Amino acid sequence: MSEANTRERLLSAALRLFAQHSFAGTSLQMIADHLGVTKAAIYHHFKTRDEILTAVLQPALQELRELIAKAEAQRSPGARADALLTGFVDMTVRHRKLVGMVGTDPGVAHALGTHPDIAELFGKPLALLASNEPSPAGEINASLVLSGIACTASSPLLTHLDDETLREQLLTSTRRLLGLRPRRLTTTAAG
Amino acid sequence: MSEANTRERLLSAALRLFAQHSFAGTSLQMIADHLGVTKAAIYHHFKTRDEILTAVLQPALQELRELIAKAEAQRSPGARADALLTGFVDMTVRHRKLVGMVGTDPGVAHALGTHPDIAELFGKPLALLASNEPSPAGEINASLVLSGIACTASSPLLTHLDDETLREQLLTSTRRLLGLRPRRLTTTAAG
Repeated sequence: MSEANTRERLLSAALRLFAQHSFAGTSLQMIADHLGVTKAAIYHHFKTRDEILTAVLQPALQELRELIAKAEAQRSPGARADALLTGFVDMTVRHRKLVGMVGTDPGVAHALGTHPDIAELFGKPLALLASNEPSPAGEINASLVLSGIACTASSPLLTHLDDETLREQLLTSTRRLLGLRPRRLTTTAAG
Repeated sequence: MSEANTRERLLSAALRLFAQHSFAGTSLQMIADHLGVTKAAIYHHFKTRDEILTAVLQPALQELRELIAKAEAQRSPGARADALLTGFVDMTVRHRKLVGMVGTDPGVAHALGTHPDIAELFGKPLALLASNEPSPAGEINASLVLSGIACTASSPLLTHLDDETLREQLLTSTRRLLGLRPRRLTTTAAG
C-alpha cells in the first residue's frame, strides 16, 4: 500500500474513532490497533494526536479559506455577503459530522484553542458578513446566522433530516433574516 | 457571617474563578484561598467541584424550567412560540456570561454531560418552538434561532454591545425569521 494511501486510511480511522470515543478518549495505540498496524507505523506519519486532528481538519479549513477569498473578491457588500452565506451553508452541511465534532467535543475545542491561526480563520466569516451592514444590528444578525447554521447543521437532534433539506431551508431562512433577495433558481443573462 | 451568606459568596467566587481559569483549572483549594477560608469550610457546603457547578447554574436552570412551564400553558401554538422566544432571549441576555461559560468551557460541557436531567431540560425549548410549525422547516428554524441566540448573546466577539441592544435586535430578527408578528410596543385592551 502506498504512503499516501496509508495516511488517508489513518485519517479516516482517526475521525471515526474521535467521533466514537472523543478526541481525548482516542490514543495513538487505539488508531494503530484499529488499522492493524504498529504504533511505530503511526509515528512515521504523525508525532502527536494533535497533529492528526489538524490533518483531519485540513481539507475543510482549506475550503473555508478559499470560500473567504472568493467572497472577498466580490465587488459589492451585498454580493460578498451572498457568496459567503451560500458557500458557508454548503460546506457546513457537507461537513456536518466534522462541524459537530469541533463544536461539541471538549478535547477538540481545547486542542484548537492552542492554534491562534485557526481561531483567527473562524472569526473571518463573521467580520465579512457583518461588514454588509456596519451597525450593531448587522453584527448581531451575522452572528445569529453563522452560529445558527453551524449548530443546526451539526445538531444531534436533527440527524433525521437529509443534507438537501437542511441546505435549502438554512439558506432560505438565513437569507430572509439578513434581508438578502431570494435566490433565482435559474441563471439568465438578462438577470 | 451567616451560612447562607457564605454559600452565596462561595458560589459567586467560584463563578468568577471558573470564568478566569476554566472549570477544570479551578480547584477547591483555589476557591478557599480566594475567600480566605480553609478547604474544610468549603467541604462544609460542597463535597465536589461538580456540586459547586450545579449550584452555580441552579438559578438559571430554575428560570428555564419556569419559562418552559409558562410557554406550555399558552393556548395556541403561536402564543407558545411567542412566550418561549421572548423569555428565552431575555434570560439568555441576562445570563450571557453564564451561557458563554456553559457553551465554551470544555470542562463544563463534560461535567454537564453526566447530568441527563439537564440535557433533557436543554432539549425542551427546541421541541416547544418546533411544535409551532411541525415540518422540517419548523425544526430547522427553531434550531437556527435558539442556537443563534445562545451563541450570539454569549459571543466573546460581541461583548461591546450592551444588553438592551442585544435583546431588542435578537427579538426583532428571530421573530422575523419565524414569521411571528412584530411585537406591539404598548399593550392596549383594544389589541
